[in-house]
Amino acid sequence: MSEFIYGHWAVMESLRAGKRDFEQLILSENAEEKGIIGEIMSTAEEKGVPVKRVPRRILNDVTGDANHQNTALRVGTYPYSSLDDVLALSKERDEKPFILLLDLLKDPQNVGVLLRVADAVGIHGVILQDRRGVSVTPAVVSASSGAVEHLNVMQVTNLVQTMRELKDLDIWLAGLDIGPNTPTIDKTDLNMALGLVLGSEGEGMRRLVRDTCDLLFCLPMRGNVASLNVATVGSVALYSAWRARSWQGWAHA
Amino acid sequence: MSEFIYGHWAVMESLRAGKRDFEQLILSENAEEKGIIGEIMSTAEEKGVPVKRVPRRILNDVTGDANHQNTALRVGTYPYSSLDDVLALSKERDEKPFILLLDLLKDPQNVGVLLRVADAVGIHGVILQDRRGVSVTPAVVSASSGAVEHLNVMQVTNLVQTMRELKDLDIWLAGLDIGPNTPTIDKTDLNMALGLVLGSEGEGMRRLVRDTCDLLFCLPMRGNVASLNVATVGSVALYSAWRARSWQGWAHA
Repeated sequence: MSEFIYGHWAVMESLRAGKRDFEQLILSENAEEKGIIGEIMSTAEEKGVPVKRVPRRILNDVTGDANHQNTALRVGTYPYSSLDDVLALSKERDEKPFILLLDLLKDPQNVGVLLRVADAVGIHGVILQDRRGVSVTPAVVSASSGAVEHLNVMQVTNLVQTMRELKDLDIWLAGLDIGPNTPTIDKTDLNMALGLVLGSEGEGMRRLVRDTCDLLFCLPMRGNVASLNVATVGSVALYSAWRARSWQGWAHA
Repeated sequence: MSEFIYGHWAVMESLRAGKRDFEQLILSENAEEKGIIGEIMSTAEEKGVPVKRVPRRILNDVTGDANHQNTALRVGTYPYSSLDDVLALSKERDEKPFILLLDLLKDPQNVGVLLRVADAVGIHGVILQDRRGVSVTPAVVSASSGAVEHLNVMQVTNLVQTMRELKDLDIWLAGLDIGPNTPTIDKTDLNMALGLVLGSEGEGMRRLVRDTCDLLFCLPMRGNVASLNVATVGSVALYSAWRARSWQGWAHA
């Protein structure tokens, strides 16, 4: 089955990453061959992807009126990774496993932001609970600026069972919970083989997911507005975990 | 002049904060008086704000087809704060000044996210460069989930001049820059009288703003996608600064 990735960076990173089957690059008739569009075209050419020009309304149609920036890529579906892929990457980089688990997040925008940060901090794999949670749709690809195309993303039918498998591998599962009876993020050792667990918007982790974590920690908030967006909280947590690893893998570390 | 704040949390927090003149609470005819709408109505009643029911299309009109959630509040314009207000809050709380400066950010969504985090970490004041940057529009209020209604926000015509005033008050200006030749955020002492400076999307700080900073620091990134959104980077930086202050002011600290 084909789908349409849209937007400059989503299309560019998808081509660069080369994770999918590429069927066709689709540009609107009025898109000029310069700047980022020029770069996309030359990358498509290198990869042997045919280019087609169409009226803008066709792009509106195939992307469901999304903000496509005159650019779409018809591709095969997203190839999900396995736990073996995730562990292999950790081993290849000679780094303790660093995994992000998302329990039933609903908003493609939030998931996209988190995937972009996951890429920035060098996460080895992201695990999504399937069915009722978000999967890697074109909206998620765009919201991640294409970062998801470079990541190992797993989709599992039973997150708790996967959590147990991770525990058997001596990976510690740290769930981000609300305070005040959990230690704060800076008092929590995140420099270990780590699975960072985030719950869904509004509802947090499901009870069994929460109970399966090895430890819980919180991010303090002192403001008037009761809560922060999960994408914000998760971004701060991902950066804290990477900081605890002394920016491992950063070219300038 | 009046404007229309829209969305459940924006309206609720605006009523709670009581910073503005309230003219009328406007609900669509089909909005049920329960849950958050019920809370908004009773808060409006406490504050003596009249309620009006209108057809949904009127709400679409006055909010420019925004995601109004059947709720709008006609209010006076946002009352900006002065530097004296900001310093007074710092003094009242007996905390070293903690200020956020935004140099010409363009996207109301980004500014809204940053204001929400600024509220969560207890920032004493936010300083915006006016004219070519974002001001506190209803879109910003919504994107901040109403957090901006609780904050001191200043709008200045010359950000560099205000930066010099802050320096004269022994407030250190720390600019978030791109690496690799600047120290990383964890090697930078942020536990001081601090003005955290963020540059605009894509372009960063203007040169004179950058040159006026006392120090620059960076947030590492190791991923395939070249950059992170300023709202993400700024959120991580705000939390790092508050962590350096040992979560000062947090009820459970």
